[in-house]
Amino acid sequence: MQRYFIAREQFETNTVKVQGDDAFHIQNVMRAKLGDHIIVADGAGQEAIAEIVALSKGTVEATYSELTNSAGEARIDVWIAQALPKGDKMETIIQKGTEIGANRFVPFISERTIVQYDAKKEAKRIERWARIAKEAAEQAHRGRIPAIEAVSSWRELLAMVPQVTVAFICYEKEDAQQFRELLQAVISKDSASHNTSIRIMLIVGPEGGLTEGEIHEAEQAGCRTISLGRRILRTETAAMVGLSCILYESGEIGG
Amino acid sequence: MQRYFIAREQFETNTVKVQGDDAFHIQNVMRAKLGDHIIVADGAGQEAIAEIVALSKGTVEATYSELTNSAGEARIDVWIAQALPKGDKMETIIQKGTEIGANRFVPFISERTIVQYDAKKEAKRIERWARIAKEAAEQAHRGRIPAIEAVSSWRELLAMVPQVTVAFICYEKEDAQQFRELLQAVISKDSASHNTSIRIMLIVGPEGGLTEGEIHEAEQAGCRTISLGRRILRTETAAMVGLSCILYESGEIGG
Repeated sequence: MQRYFIAREQFETNTVKVQGDDAFHIQNVMRAKLGDHIIVADGAGQEAIAEIVALSKGTVEATYSELTNSAGEARIDVWIAQALPKGDKMETIIQKGTEIGANRFVPFISERTIVQYDAKKEAKRIERWARIAKEAAEQAHRGRIPAIEAVSSWRELLAMVPQVTVAFICYEKEDAQQFRELLQAVISKDSASHNTSIRIMLIVGPEGGLTEGEIHEAEQAGCRTISLGRRILRTETAAMVGLSCILYESGEIGG
Repeated sequence: MQRYFIAREQFETNTVKVQGDDAFHIQNVMRAKLGDHIIVADGAGQEAIAEIVALSKGTVEATYSELTNSAGEARIDVWIAQALPKGDKMETIIQKGTEIGANRFVPFISERTIVQYDAKKEAKRIERWARIAKEAAEQAHRGRIPAIEAVSSWRELLAMVPQVTVAFICYEKEDAQQFRELLQAVISKDSASHNTSIRIMLIVGPEGGLTEGEIHEAEQAGCRTISLGRRILRTETAAMVGLSCILYESGEIGG
């Protein structure tokens, strides 16, 4: 059944109104008829199976009996904080990270960030990233569209650390013994409450790496430095691998 | 220190001869001088630190005292069997899979493979894939260049199953409870021998998925069907996620 993310304000009690591109898709691509069913998701973790009851130019109306929690959502809340990479790698990270199960992306600028940060282009870029996240979430059958934050400074990023249960920072010089132990400690402490309250931030540096000074500041701010093994990963690979390990350890991938 | 993969036949006792692009890179990009050091790796898991003792047009000679096992190699041997995906996704899978730590790529054709298989273009394509694997292995500081196999038929793929300890096949309809248990059973059984003899093949279907008939045949051939969780992963994402989980569980990522 086709899934659509519909803005929260389009949901009324037992009725949902679909407009714009999605309404076009339902009528002209899926060629839906009255009585057909679609999945409508609010992008915040709730969804329903809805029956189409009215079709008009630009609008589709559907009715549903109840909203339920989306089955495609991880019980653990993982944020990817990614130093702005070169080219279109941020798009890859957002697309793959959304499929795998991240809930929030925080792009940031660090000392060795190579790309020119252009505030004028920022709004357009965030809009594009948000669209990639929405499409990847639909494709992956997720019930939640991950949030895309505005580009943060290093200082702003570190100020977010108190909002999470634990912030891991990838550092290729770190001894490889800690990530799994740290992860198991965080997850087992919370297993009684089914991971509902664990929030993990994974911080990944730019192509040139983070500086020793930045690592020191991150540790002062409460971050835990980790290694992802003896093979040196490209910046866009590190986020996917770290995220996969976190969701595997918490039982979200592979049972 | 810069790393170079050098063909095995260029290694003599304590001396190595570097030619072609690598010799050009050493002289014209790194601007190396006599007495400088480089890392020379044979692409099969052994490497040495070598001192440059002669520079001439197109050739660099270096001496080393002993070859040692590369530290960047996983103790577990993982093969990625990937149904040919659309566009340049196979390149992404080889690049990322090499960084993460796969040792062999087996592209194959299944019932729902969308791309046209062109035997004439095959040699060129395998050459290109091998170059991507070599570059990714150098960049990741690996000591081994993963093997790229010729494109297999479904039947040829299943005939490889007896060569591995276990073959996992990703199937989105499979109940999500098994992958971790199966993986732990395989790895713990072998932990006494430090994983040296474990060989795992991870089979990933094409964009349209594997058919029920193919899954049945794979099971008959001894494969274990697994799920990578409740989020539907694109074909090129599944290999990276599955590989990350295998290397994490075996202690190769995160300690």
